[in-house]
Order: sequence, then structure tokens, then C-alpha cells
Amino acid sequence: MFEQLGLIGCGLMGGSFALALKKAGLVKRVVGYSKSPSTTERARQMGVIDVEAPSALLAVSGADLVLLAVPVSATETTFKAIRHLVGPNTLIMDVGSTKREVIDAARRVLRDQVGVFVPAHPITGKELAGVENADPDLYAGRQVILTPIERTQPAQLDKAHAVWTALGCHVKQMSPEAHDAAYAAVSHLPHMIAFALMNAVTGQSQGEEFLSLAGPGFRDFTRIAASDPSIWRDILMSNREELLAQSRHFQRALHAFETAIAADNPDALESLIDRASTSRAHWRMSAIKPRS
Amino acid sequence: MFEQLGLIGCGLMGGSFALALKKAGLVKRVVGYSKSPSTTERARQMGVIDVEAPSALLAVSGADLVLLAVPVSATETTFKAIRHLVGPNTLIMDVGSTKREVIDAARRVLRDQVGVFVPAHPITGKELAGVENADPDLYAGRQVILTPIERTQPAQLDKAHAVWTALGCHVKQMSPEAHDAAYAAVSHLPHMIAFALMNAVTGQSQGEEFLSLAGPGFRDFTRIAASDPSIWRDILMSNREELLAQSRHFQRALHAFETAIAADNPDALESLIDRASTSRAHWRMSAIKPRS
Repeated sequence: MFEQLGLIGCGLMGGSFALALKKAGLVKRVVGYSKSPSTTERARQMGVIDVEAPSALLAVSGADLVLLAVPVSATETTFKAIRHLVGPNTLIMDVGSTKREVIDAARRVLRDQVGVFVPAHPITGKELAGVENADPDLYAGRQVILTPIERTQPAQLDKAHAVWTALGCHVKQMSPEAHDAAYAAVSHLPHMIAFALMNAVTGQSQGEEFLSLAGPGFRDFTRIAASDPSIWRDILMSNREELLAQSRHFQRALHAFETAIAADNPDALESLIDRASTSRAHWRMSAIKPRS
Repeated sequence: MFEQLGLIGCGLMGGSFALALKKAGLVKRVVGYSKSPSTTERARQMGVIDVEAPSALLAVSGADLVLLAVPVSATETTFKAIRHLVGPNTLIMDVGSTKREVIDAARRVLRDQVGVFVPAHPITGKELAGVENADPDLYAGRQVILTPIERTQPAQLDKAHAVWTALGCHVKQMSPEAHDAAYAAVSHLPHMIAFALMNAVTGQSQGEEFLSLAGPGFRDFTRIAASDPSIWRDILMSNREELLAQSRHFQRALHAFETAIAADNPDALESLIDRASTSRAHWRMSAIKPRS
């Protein structure tokens, strides 16, 4: 049980975390701050937070748990804003989709106190951002990746494990480097591809007509293309090297399809599809969410 | 009301069509044929068809409605097998995802009788093929594209409109060329990309680890990668020119993302994402299926 959650960023991810903690009876008080005062006010009106803080620093004042739920690019500024009230027993976590840049920022700003920060990435989300879409069950049944560094304090890491587990998450621990490589492959690249496909279609003169004909396969394939532009600008930028490396892997794989097709080689094409289809048919998402 | 549906191909698409016609009370008798006798037998045991035919020709004998639900590459052989029993009042349709090759095959084989053939493409499907997944509601609420040619008989075209409409479909008519271009963009290319992404991930030494970390975005993006290899080999092959043209559009769009990222230009990147996100957020699938 935490006395106070200091929530910095009261959007979809932060708001859902506050609601989940409250639902699980794990926190007495949530003090929230968002860059936009109207968001903070909305969060209080919705009962996502109990008290509006006029600054990130004041949200942290008195908090034994701090969640940074801000765009990855705002991490360093946020650490700077709160560093003076970070105590030795505070647990600070983030929810960023990339980890190396976030950790670099934490090292630079928190310095000797960096051990209280446990970098976290919950594998969940919605295309609809904003506190109005906050959902106490957003994290239930999902994976959460923790990427501690050598200086992370064991007590803080244990508390981080405990809180996510109590929210019904499956906690996994890995290095920041391994994390960033994996999510470049299975999340950041798919997003970039889905964005690019939308632009490729709408950039053609018959684009609108094409879109009007699209069916359920297109719907699911492009769902992630509706994601928030500034959030995803940050994610793609902050993991650029891994992302570009994964994009090269993908383009080689795509080229193999084009080569088989252009060479009029149906056997080669079928064997490429068969490999993909078999892997996908056997894949199951870890920590399957019990509700739909 | 049709006297007899001659169903050639008793898999997911054909079996679902037979079940839908029966559910709507539009057919007295379904005579079915599949290349694999065990499929035909299974279809009869499941009540998808009423009578097993030992050949495609015998399924057509006495039929006033014929549905070809075979892989696109089997179309010509199937037309050859049935041509001798095609009467002037028979309505023949297919359900193929590409139309030009199917129509060329119909012209070559049916010749003077080609007017009884109404090329059709229902925009629906499942990753799980086979008669065991046949579903009387597979077509309900979906779009069906008809691509008649100048020789298509108006009476047959009217009947085709009527039968799909009676199954709850939204019928749209367009040229075979426009159809193939549009579906290269919104269906065939997304499938090829999803296949290539799976192969790009699994082709890396950490591929299995990467897959174990993937979440709901990956799940939806790659759903279509589990599609049937031989069916999709045919579709991609039979629409190869449009597909390769669309792939070039896509690769240019992807390159724009890579350029913005490599140039460390977050504004350019955000504007690319914003364009994609806005188009996708405004897109709605036509003829939305009432059930989930």
C-alpha cells in the first residue's frame, strides 16, 4: 500500500495506472500534474486523481510512488523538475516504449539517486489517447517489461515487481538494450509500416476510392496507424538505430517476396508465405488478457 | 429462390455461401464437389451440402446457380470441367480476390457462354480455412464487388445483385481493372507486408524471444499473416503487376519515414505520422458488420 502516487502526465497511460491502483486498493491518495491544466482538472473531475498539483515537483512532494507518464522526449525535463524532492525511499517508474534514452536521461539528471528509478514498459495501449479514455483494466493481464540497470536499488525493483503483479500484470525483466531491439522489431517497425501504408494509399489519386473498398483485414492491419502522432514521433526517434536496423531486415524479407513474384516462381512464393503463416498461426500473445 | 446450387469448392468461402443461402431460404438443394473427397464428405455430414457430387461437372448438372469457390489458379481447369453443362439461364459466380485473370480464364473457356458468368469478390474471410470454419453469417453486412464485362448478361447481373443483397451484403460494381488496382493497395500488399514482417522477425537469431514480447498491436497487425499459403500464393501471383506497383508506392512512403528519422527531423516525422493517423482515424469500413 502506497501513501501517495505522484502522477506526472494524466493521459491514457497515467490515468489508467491511477485508476488501476485505486481499484486494487493500493494507494491512499493520487496527486496529479499534467502540462495542460485542463487535463489535470478533467482528471480530478473524473476521479482519476484526488488532488491537482500546480507543478510536477508538487505532485512528487510527499509521494512514495511516482509515475512518469509523459512522452519519452519529456523525460529529462520532468526528471529535472522533480529531482529536488526525490527521497531515498521513493519508487519512480516510467511507462515509456523505449528504454535507453529514458535511462540516459535518468542517469544525467538523478545522478546518485538514479537507483530509485525502475524503468518500466507496460505492453498495452489504445489508439485513443487522453484521460477520457483512461481505463482501470488497461494493464490487467498484460506484460510489463522492467529494464533495471546495475545501479537500480533491489528494494525499489522488488516494489516495482510487486505493484505491477498486484495489477494483474506478467512482469518480465530484461536489459534496456535487449528491450529496445525487441520492440523495434515487434512494435516500432509495425507502427512505422502501418503509417507508411496509409500514406502510400492516400497519396494516390484514387486513394479515397481504395479506402472505401477496404475490409476487415485492412482494418486490423492499420489499426495502429491511428496512434498519437507526437507520442509516436518520440518513440520512433528515440529508438532510431534499432528501428532502422529492423526496417532493413524487413525490406530484405519484402524483397524476397517481390523477387519470387517477379520471377514467376509460385513455389518459392508459397514457401515464403508458408513460413510466415506457420509462425503466425503458432504465435500466442503472452499474458493473454482475460477480458476481450 | 434457386432450385439447385452447384458448389465447386466446399471450403470456408463456398461452405459459408451454401449455409447463408440455406439460412435465407434461397435454395432448395445444394450439390457440392471438392477436389478432396474427404472435404466433400465432411461438408455433407455438416449439412453444408445436401448431396456429394463425384465431379465438378455433376455438381453443375441441374444447377441454376453455380459458385466457384476454388483457388484463383484452379479457375480455368474448373471452367473446363463444367462447360458442357452450363445452360443459358445458369448463373455462375466466383469469389476470387483478383478478377482479371479469372475473367480471362472465363473468356477462354466459356467463349460464347461467358455472359452467364458474373465475377464476384466478397470482402470477407477468416484466417482459418476449411469447411469446419464455414459460417452462415460470414457474408452478412460485408461488401461484395461485382466486376461484369461488356458481354455479361444483364439478367444474370441482376440475379447476382439480388442474391448477394438477400444475404445482407452491400453490392458494388466496378471494372475488373479498378478492382485489381484497389485490392492490390488495400488487401494484397498488406498481406505481403504482414508475411514479410513475420519472416523478418523469425529470420533473426532472437526472433523467438522478440515474438514472446509482442503485444496487441502486433497481434492485430499480423493477423492476416496467418492466411492460407496456397490461396495467397495464387492471389499475389495473379495480381502481380498491380501488387508490385503498390509495393513501390509503399516503399517510397516508408523511405520518407526513414529519411526523416535518419535526418533527425522530428517535425518532418510527426507530420508524416499525423497524415497517416488522421486518415486512419477518419476511415470507417463500409457496410459494417452488425455482429462483432
